[in-house]
Amino acid sequence: MLTGQDAPSSSRFGPRRIREESVMLRTINPSTGALPFQSLMVADLGDVNVNLYNLQDSCRLIQEAYQKIVAAGCVPLTLGGDHTITYPILQAMAKKHGPVGLLHVDAHMDTADKALGEKIYHGAPFRRCVEEKLLDCKRVVQIGIRGSSTTVDPYRYSRNQGFRVVLAEDCWLKSLVPLMAEVRQQMGGKPMYISFDIDGLDPAYAPGTGTPEIAGLTPSQALEIIRGCQGLNVVGCDLVEVSPPYDPFGNTALLAANLLFEMLCVLPKVRVV
Amino acid sequence: MLTGQDAPSSSRFGPRRIREESVMLRTINPSTGALPFQSLMVADLGDVNVNLYNLQDSCRLIQEAYQKIVAAGCVPLTLGGDHTITYPILQAMAKKHGPVGLLHVDAHMDTADKALGEKIYHGAPFRRCVEEKLLDCKRVVQIGIRGSSTTVDPYRYSRNQGFRVVLAEDCWLKSLVPLMAEVRQQMGGKPMYISFDIDGLDPAYAPGTGTPEIAGLTPSQALEIIRGCQGLNVVGCDLVEVSPPYDPFGNTALLAANLLFEMLCVLPKVRVV
Amino acid sequence: MLTGQDAPSSSRFGPRRIREESVMLRTINPSTGALPFQSLMVADLGDVNVNLYNLQDSCRLIQEAYQKIVAAGCVPLTLGGDHTITYPILQAMAKKHGPVGLLHVDAHMDTADKALGEKIYHGAPFRRCVEEKLLDCKRVVQIGIRGSSTTVDPYRYSRNQGFRVVLAEDCWLKSLVPLMAEVRQQMGGKPMYISFDIDGLDPAYAPGTGTPEIAGLTPSQALEIIRGCQGLNVVGCDLVEVSPPYDPFGNTALLAANLLFEMLCVLPKVRVV
Amino acid sequence: MLTGQDAPSSSRFGPRRIREESVMLRTINPSTGALPFQSLMVADLGDVNVNLYNLQDSCRLIQEAYQKIVAAGCVPLTLGGDHTITYPILQAMAKKHGPVGLLHVDAHMDTADKALGEKIYHGAPFRRCVEEKLLDCKRVVQIGIRGSSTTVDPYRYSRNQGFRVVLAEDCWLKSLVPLMAEVRQQMGGKPMYISFDIDGLDPAYAPGTGTPEIAGLTPSQALEIIRGCQGLNVVGCDLVEVSPPYDPFGNTALLAANLLFEMLCVLPKVRVV
Amino acid sequence: MLTGQDAPSSSRFGPRRIREESVMLRTINPSTGALPFQSLMVADLGDVNVNLYNLQDSCRLIQEAYQKIVAAGCVPLTLGGDHTITYPILQAMAKKHGPVGLLHVDAHMDTADKALGEKIYHGAPFRRCVEEKLLDCKRVVQIGIRGSSTTVDPYRYSRNQGFRVVLAEDCWLKSLVPLMAEVRQQMGGKPMYISFDIDGLDPAYAPGTGTPEIAGLTPSQALEIIRGCQGLNVVGCDLVEVSPPYDPFGNTALLAANLLFEMLCVLPKVRVV
Amino acid sequence: MLTGQDAPSSSRFGPRRIREESVMLRTINPSTGALPFQSLMVADLGDVNVNLYNLQDSCRLIQEAYQKIVAAGCVPLTLGGDHTITYPILQAMAKKHGPVGLLHVDAHMDTADKALGEKIYHGAPFRRCVEEKLLDCKRVVQIGIRGSSTTVDPYRYSRNQGFRVVLAEDCWLKSLVPLMAEVRQQMGGKPMYISFDIDGLDPAYAPGTGTPEIAGLTPSQALEIIRGCQGLNVVGCDLVEVSPPYDPFGNTALLAANLLFEMLCVLPKVRVV
Repeated sequence: MLTGQDAPSSSRFGPRRIREESVMLRTINPSTGALPFQSLMVADLGDVNVNLYNLQDSCRLIQEAYQKIVAAGCVPLTLGGDHTITYPILQAMAKKHGPVGLLHVDAHMDTADKALGEKIYHGAPFRRCVEEKLLDCKRVVQIGIRGSSTTVDPYRYSRNQGFRVVLAEDCWLKSLVPLMAEVRQQMGGKPMYISFDIDGLDPAYAPGTGTPEIAGLTPSQALEIIRGCQGLNVVGCDLVEVSPPYDPFGNTALLAANLLFEMLCVLPKVRVV
Repeated sequence: MLTGQDAPSSSRFGPRRIREESVMLRTINPSTGALPFQSLMVADLGDVNVNLYNLQDSCRLIQEAYQKIVAAGCVPLTLGGDHTITYPILQAMAKKHGPVGLLHVDAHMDTADKALGEKIYHGAPFRRCVEEKLLDCKRVVQIGIRGSSTTVDPYRYSRNQGFRVVLAEDCWLKSLVPLMAEVRQQMGGKPMYISFDIDGLDPAYAPGTGTPEIAGLTPSQALEIIRGCQGLNVVGCDLVEVSPPYDPFGNTALLAANLLFEMLCVLPKVRVV
Repeated sequence: MLTGQDAPSSSRFGPRRIREESVMLRTINPSTGALPFQSLMVADLGDVNVNLYNLQDSCRLIQEAYQKIVAAGCVPLTLGGDHTITYPILQAMAKKHGPVGLLHVDAHMDTADKALGEKIYHGAPFRRCVEEKLLDCKRVVQIGIRGSSTTVDPYRYSRNQGFRVVLAEDCWLKSLVPLMAEVRQQMGGKPMYISFDIDGLDPAYAPGTGTPEIAGLTPSQALEIIRGCQGLNVVGCDLVEVSPPYDPFGNTALLAANLLFEMLCVLPKVRVV
Repeated sequence: MLTGQDAPSSSRFGPRRIREESVMLRTINPSTGALPFQSLMVADLGDVNVNLYNLQDSCRLIQEAYQKIVAAGCVPLTLGGDHTITYPILQAMAKKHGPVGLLHVDAHMDTADKALGEKIYHGAPFRRCVEEKLLDCKRVVQIGIRGSSTTVDPYRYSRNQGFRVVLAEDCWLKSLVPLMAEVRQQMGGKPMYISFDIDGLDPAYAPGTGTPEIAGLTPSQALEIIRGCQGLNVVGCDLVEVSPPYDPFGNTALLAANLLFEMLCVLPKVRVV
Repeated sequence: MLTGQDAPSSSRFGPRRIREESVMLRTINPSTGALPFQSLMVADLGDVNVNLYNLQDSCRLIQEAYQKIVAAGCVPLTLGGDHTITYPILQAMAKKHGPVGLLHVDAHMDTADKALGEKIYHGAPFRRCVEEKLLDCKRVVQIGIRGSSTTVDPYRYSRNQGFRVVLAEDCWLKSLVPLMAEVRQQMGGKPMYISFDIDGLDPAYAPGTGTPEIAGLTPSQALEIIRGCQGLNVVGCDLVEVSPPYDPFGNTALLAANLLFEMLCVLPKVRVV
Repeated sequence: MLTGQDAPSSSRFGPRRIREESVMLRTINPSTGALPFQSLMVADLGDVNVNLYNLQDSCRLIQEAYQKIVAAGCVPLTLGGDHTITYPILQAMAKKHGPVGLLHVDAHMDTADKALGEKIYHGAPFRRCVEEKLLDCKRVVQIGIRGSSTTVDPYRYSRNQGFRVVLAEDCWLKSLVPLMAEVRQQMGGKPMYISFDIDGLDPAYAPGTGTPEIAGLTPSQALEIIRGCQGLNVVGCDLVEVSPPYDPFGNTALLAANLLFEMLCVLPKVRVV
């Protein structure tokens, strides 16, 4: 009763499960010395009311909600959910900050044009963002890309926009500290956003996702990426595509909760001991 | 990132898993003597190309596909998938047969009006069918209904249309053979359709579904219901809402495959030894 | 290794998981017509701070917390957790109400004397309650008892106190509506407490528990038991021994959440349409 | 019932897992009053050294081992494993006792002739037994048979031998106490053997098996069957086809361990309080 | 108990599950530029009819089937299944090509002599191949070997034949690109076969197998091995020992499907963009 | 390491499951040449009778048992279970050997002072050991420490005692052979103990534990650590915190069994070929 191969569907419960596993997190980060809860006001703003049966309408609702969040001076850390959500979030971001830099960790480019005739879906958010000039294309980095493909179009599109594309192959068995030194230079002091698709990691670490690809990043590389953003002007972050049905023991959600905690630890104004 | 409670999302892979488990099925039915493969031409027509990102468009595609199937003289047994699909299927059915009788097994009425402002979703297909006069309301039976509810509106709606509503409570610990004798009388010789939501069964038997409700029907009651349709003018059947991520060992899909085999065994023109 | 609330133990996470699954519950009960949320003030009081490393101290903390809850006029519905908790809860109950009647659903008597030299553990709570005169022994009913045993002592003890013991064997394939009519008479209008160990149910329905016993009650019988308490003077309820690690897909927790909802629906002052 | 360490095959690890779960069993049976460990010498004889790569040779090894066991006056309770094992066990049984009666609980007849050209496999053991006159055909009862079939031959064969065949359909929602009264008469005081394939039970209770069939027996019916053998001249029992990979939480193995304990409780010379 | 293809055994369902997960694969390989489906005729030839109850006979059937496949000019990629199958496949290969080179990835040598008195089993295929002169021993490489052992005999045997044995220890934390440069030289332009036992990988990546060994290869190393074969005269490949019961979410099968796709991408005549 | 049968707690069943998986281990270690079973008398001493309901009493029972074991000249390899057990074991060790060196692999310091007012729990064993002068603090090494924390106190405490603390971050992507060369020098020829908490490893390899922390050690690093102890005066070892409910397929237990085998292989007097 379906065609198409990889559209994630059960990621809708991701946020709930990440919250549940986040009780394992404590307040300080001995590795980096960050004291996020002593530095910032941190609150759980609850869920955005999306329309489960209409993607366009969901995008509208998300955009409206994030405009208010951003207007209030909040730096949102978003738990997903389908990667489509980054598109309306970046609409809200760009409205306040202008085109933003993007650090995008993912197994997939997410710069396809359409699927099944639709322009709004989880494989296309960053193409939509480019079309609406939400991104500062010279400051876009995509890390962890890999896997078979039906077309090379997304690869060409990303490179044609000037994105820096770091394939998973280029990360195998390597520390990403040197890469992040370059990324920090590239981002400079201007606003940038982190969008982290959990499928950027290898399925051994993050089996709970809808479109796993083999031979991905490791959690230590993920920590190097996020910790490498310390000092940057991070205006928002998301962690998406956690799919609880494929994660019955919650280790993918726990990993996601840890990565979100690490993002919190690199936000501007977080004190370090 | 969501509200709402129960919309199934991972049922999209249901048909694939049911097909996989159907290799356990053999060709004859010793309990009823039915010889379906010696009586009918049986074929797997493959999947309907749905639009994963647009429910309205999916309904259009399903309706068009089923009009061709029905026009060819086929009696379709459909594997689902989201229960929304029964609405466009019944559009195609009624186009050929006029308003049809309906035997609907489910934990839920599926006669709500809207959810999140949308009229096309898995809790409303039979209300849409009533509105479009696809059903012969005097010949609609709903079996297995139970569980908490946000409103009594679907209960009232079903009863106001004249549907026979058989609550799960009325089935506990009872053979359904007497009920089916009455249903056979009610259906008469006119065209009728069977729509079987796997969540009509108790979650102990069918855990692999998106909105399980406790204290449901048993597989033996499901067999009594389906075998009770022998001799009726069945013009189509579906088995929906199997959700493989919640069914890692495939027993829900195997159950579904068996129920579909039993539906096949009661189709008109199936010989019995 | 860690501090705080997250040290592992299998039934300790039961309440968290039941809360999580309770999002599937809606507000009204079409089967009984109960409107609990329109009749009562219902609130989640959060967790009692127990001492994970000291059972005696945990019992003290629970007793103190429940004395405050009961003193405030609250009728507590407790989510467990180890069945030991019913002992300090009943201490608080009896302090306010005097000896209470008890409806106890369980696979096990829980009236052993000691294990490994200890008097405080999950197999002995009701013996401790009898010793401290917390129970009105003529109004104690135990339903669902079964399984092999190391000694007949708990069986003798329960019967010697005058408890009514209903073995699982006496429930097989039977409606429990007649039994509950007798129980209602036995309880009369005086205060009574419901303690429901999820292992009273068959492991097919409730696999997520630490000491499953085969051939137990069904969910429909559980509903008959709880609904049979409508009109009684229920002063408190608990649902215990849900163990999430053995319930990766949450169906045991969902069952527990439903049973707690049904308990809520039979509390005094709940209106029925 | 196995040696060797690592050759994968699903039911081969059944005995190991049943032993593991048997720690949940205690020594007395409060339901029947049986005191098996105070009445008999009970020992775990370990595994028979089978040949994992050669079925014929395995049968030879099993037969030889059981001849010694039976010669020593032992009443063996065997944990399986593939149902093929019952054939060589019955060879040993009949050598000592002559043709034996058989109480066979199963979803399948197991009286097929051949599969893939082979006569020794798990669908044919009882046909081989008939051919070798190991069974007293007037005292053979098969309970729980159901499911689709490729041919009616096993049904005809069983009935032609005079076996009593009790379909699962004939057991639905019924106590089997009356059936067992008739079976006791049929068996009389002559030697009889119990062969219990765990797939006789519904997959909701026993998912951990290789060829599950829907709408099977319940554990309470299984207990009625086994307890109904009290007083008969039981000379051996087996419980087969537990497949641990499909039973990750061990509930099928726990069920099997309980059924074996109940078989132990009905052996001749077990005292009852 | 049943006939046909569905008698339980854990790795036997590997091919079915790999096929199922292969729907996640797309047509081109952006990492290597390979366009296999635009270069070759690729077809699924279905299953070889094996004899589930007789290993010798299965070997005969496999050999006969592969002789036809090879005679037709096909380069077979085989999905397994028990590693025993490589023995009859290599019989067919050698019949056409003479003794072939072998790239063997595995945790185990698979050059034992016998187990339980049998020469045909999954620990011995390559010893049988040597005895029948199917291998060009100077061009045999075994990668990933590790784990405890009952005897050093397989280690000695492999080395005595002149095999290059690369222990897992020698691969830890290393790129295998340099190793594969040497292997390419060793293989030269003569026919060679790839036999990939999924247990060569670490169980974190490939838990779904029957004899996992800790501290194995990573998927990125597996890709380096396979991609390192580009330009060689590959005449056949297999990927064996995927065991679905230990892989309920299919990630092992998905990994296997990816590795098979990568094998397809290095076959002779595959164009690269 | 346990008695009692049914009180649920997640790591309590660790030893049982490790034993079960240890059937996959064979007798020799081809990687290191160790022949442990030909060099030493190796026996399974069974479980220590602990008190499931009283931690203090359990510690007393463990201490008494280990004093006897050590007095008999035994070098105990202990399977856990909760890490608290290392405290009474080291009491017994120090009584015989005086303060011992410690190689401690863990994600957590386990040198906290109290939790919930209690001094005996799994986060504090090594602080208790220091207070009782059971450790030779100059010869204590902790490897794998990481994760968020509620306080820096354990970090300070460990460093103030002179422990060498090797964070997980310092191990990422590195061979630990050089570190172990230094550790060997530090330990010298004096008695030392190995305490290995399975959560020192990354959850991808060892999901079956109660407090997983991301970005941990790999199994190959664990082997480097243990094999690096060859030649040291190892007087005892433990492997703790395996939690079977989170390890349904046993791969964590299998990993633990392998690590224990490797510990056995480095004990004094083990011959190497």
